[in-house]
Amino acid sequence: MTIYLNHFEKYLKESKWPDGYENLYDPCAYIMKIGGKRIRPVSMLMAYHMFKPDYERIEQAAFAIEVFHNFTLMHDDIMDQADLRRNQPTVHTKYNLNTAILSGDVMLIHAFDILLKCCDKKSYGPVLGTFTEVARGVCEGQRLDMDFETQISVKLARYVQMITLKTAVLLAGSLKIGALLAGAKARDAKLLYSFGLDAGIAFQILDDYLDAFGEQASFGKTVGGDILQNKKTFLVLKAYETMPSIAKKRLKDIFSSKISLSPDEKVMEVKALFLEHGIDQKALEASRAYTVKAKQALDRVQVAPENKLPLLQMLDDLLQRNS
Amino acid sequence: MTIYLNHFEKYLKESKWPDGYENLYDPCAYIMKIGGKRIRPVSMLMAYHMFKPDYERIEQAAFAIEVFHNFTLMHDDIMDQADLRRNQPTVHTKYNLNTAILSGDVMLIHAFDILLKCCDKKSYGPVLGTFTEVARGVCEGQRLDMDFETQISVKLARYVQMITLKTAVLLAGSLKIGALLAGAKARDAKLLYSFGLDAGIAFQILDDYLDAFGEQASFGKTVGGDILQNKKTFLVLKAYETMPSIAKKRLKDIFSSKISLSPDEKVMEVKALFLEHGIDQKALEASRAYTVKAKQALDRVQVAPENKLPLLQMLDDLLQRNS
Repeated sequence: MTIYLNHFEKYLKESKWPDGYENLYDPCAYIMKIGGKRIRPVSMLMAYHMFKPDYERIEQAAFAIEVFHNFTLMHDDIMDQADLRRNQPTVHTKYNLNTAILSGDVMLIHAFDILLKCCDKKSYGPVLGTFTEVARGVCEGQRLDMDFETQISVKLARYVQMITLKTAVLLAGSLKIGALLAGAKARDAKLLYSFGLDAGIAFQILDDYLDAFGEQASFGKTVGGDILQNKKTFLVLKAYETMPSIAKKRLKDIFSSKISLSPDEKVMEVKALFLEHGIDQKALEASRAYTVKAKQALDRVQVAPENKLPLLQMLDDLLQRNS
Repeated sequence: MTIYLNHFEKYLKESKWPDGYENLYDPCAYIMKIGGKRIRPVSMLMAYHMFKPDYERIEQAAFAIEVFHNFTLMHDDIMDQADLRRNQPTVHTKYNLNTAILSGDVMLIHAFDILLKCCDKKSYGPVLGTFTEVARGVCEGQRLDMDFETQISVKLARYVQMITLKTAVLLAGSLKIGALLAGAKARDAKLLYSFGLDAGIAFQILDDYLDAFGEQASFGKTVGGDILQNKKTFLVLKAYETMPSIAKKRLKDIFSSKISLSPDEKVMEVKALFLEHGIDQKALEASRAYTVKAKQALDRVQVAPENKLPLLQMLDDLLQRNS
C-alpha cells in the first residue's frame, strides 16, 4: 500500500486549485490537507495496476475521487454539527456555514471536471456513469443515516443498505473506475466493484464492533462513543433482532434513559448485554462473511494472482484489528 | 417562446424523481414546482431548433439544466437566509437546513447524470466540458457576490464579472449545449455562447435599473429594494465611478446611515442623485450596448435568419421593459 499512498500524497502535495477566488478554493485545499487514509484513491491506483503498469497515468482520476470524498466530508460535517475533524477545525467552524456549503459544491463540480478530462471516447460512459451512480448513492446513504436518527425502530437490513450506500459504494466505484481506465473487461470491473462493496461493508461492521469492543490504544475514536450517543449501530440493531424480549427491553430502557446510569455504567451495561447474547461474535461473523465474499469476487478477476496482492494486503490492513 | 415553454412545462410535469428516499427527492420536486421563467431550458430548446427540427429529443438535457439551476437556488437561499421564493417557503424553511444542503447536492449530481445520458461519443467532451465550466463559474460568481457584501469598495468591472459568472454563463452554456447536441459547428456553438453571455449581462444590468426606476406594477420585486438593502448594484458602482466627489460622499453617507433618513426618503434621495448625474441613463446605455453585442453574435450564426427569430423574440421579451 505504501508505494501507492506515497505516490498519491506526493501528487496531492503538488496539486493546485484554480487561481483567484481564494475564499472559494482555499477551504477546499484546507480540508484536503487535513488528511485521511486515502483508501479510495489508493484503491483506484491498485485496481488500475492490476491490469496495466503505468498507474501514474491516472493520478488525476484518483485525485478526483479524493476531492469528491472530501466534498462529502465538508457537507456531512455541517449536517453533523461537527466542530473538529482529525483534531482540526471543520470548514464551517474555521470559515463559516456559507463557505462550507459553496466550497463543497465547487469540490463536487471539480471532481466531475477532472474525471471528465481523464476519459476518452471509450471510457467516458462507463467511468462517468459509475461515478454519478456512486455519487447519488452516497447522498442516498447520508439521507438514510439522517432519517434513522428520528426513527424508533430500524431494520438491520436497512442499516446494511445505509452503510453500503454511505461508505461502501465509493470504495467499490473507485476500484471499478480504476479498472475501467486500465481498459479492463466489464466483467472484471464489475467483480472489483463487488469486492469493494463487500470489503466496505465488512469494514464498517468491524468499525461498529471496535467502537464497543476495541482497544482504546489502537482504535482512533473513543471506545463506547456510539453507545453514549445512542447510535443505531450494527450491534444495537442485531441485538434488537436476536435478543430475547427481556434483554431487548432492558437495552431500550437504557437507551431511552428510563434506567439512569453514569456514562461509564451505560457503556459497561450495554457491552455486558451484547456479550451475554453473543452480539459481539455475531458482528465479527458478519464482518468476516462479507470479507470472504469480497475475496471470492477478487479471486475471480482474470489477472495473475500476484497482481491481486496489493488489494488483498490493503484489505488485511483495514481489517487487521479483526484478528 | 410559448411553444417551447409549454413543451418544457409538460415534460416537467410528467418528470419523475427516483423512487424511495422521499426525504431526499421530495424537496427537489418541490423547488422545481415553485416555478420560474424557465429561460435556460427554453433557450436550450431554441438553440437546438435553430439547427435541427426534433427539439423534443433534448427535453431531458433541458430538464438537466433546470435541475442544475434549481440546485443553485436551493443552496443560494440558505446562504442568503431567504425564507420565501416566489411567495413559497424556501426548502430550508419548509424542511430544514440539512435537507436543503443534501437535496441540493443530489440535484447537482442528478443534473450531471441526466446530461451524461444525453451525450454520445462525439458530444460528451464538448457538452460535459461546457457544463462543468459553467457550473464552476456559477460557484465563482456566488463567491464574488458574497465577498462584495463585506468589501468597502467594489470596482464596476469586478461587478460585471460577478453577474457574468453568477447569471450569464448558465444562459450562455444552455444555448451552447443546445447547439452542440444538434451537431452545430463549434464556431456557431461559440457564437451562441457569446449571445447568451451578453444577453445575460444586459438583462442583469436592466434588472438593477428596474429595481430603482421600474414601475411597481410590471416589476416583480419591491421597487427600491436594492437601495434599502444597500446593495452594490450596477447603478451604485457606476455612481461611485462617475459622480463628482461631493455627490459620491453624499451617497456614501446615505448608505452608511451617516445621514438619517426614512426608507422612503432614502430611496427618493438615492434616485434623485442617480437622475441628477445621469446614472439611470448610463445603466440603460450599458444594457443596450450588451444587447447590441448579443445580437451581433447571433447575426453571425450560419443558419437561415428565420431560424433565429425565436431567440430574438425571447431576448426582446426579456428586455421589453427596457423600451
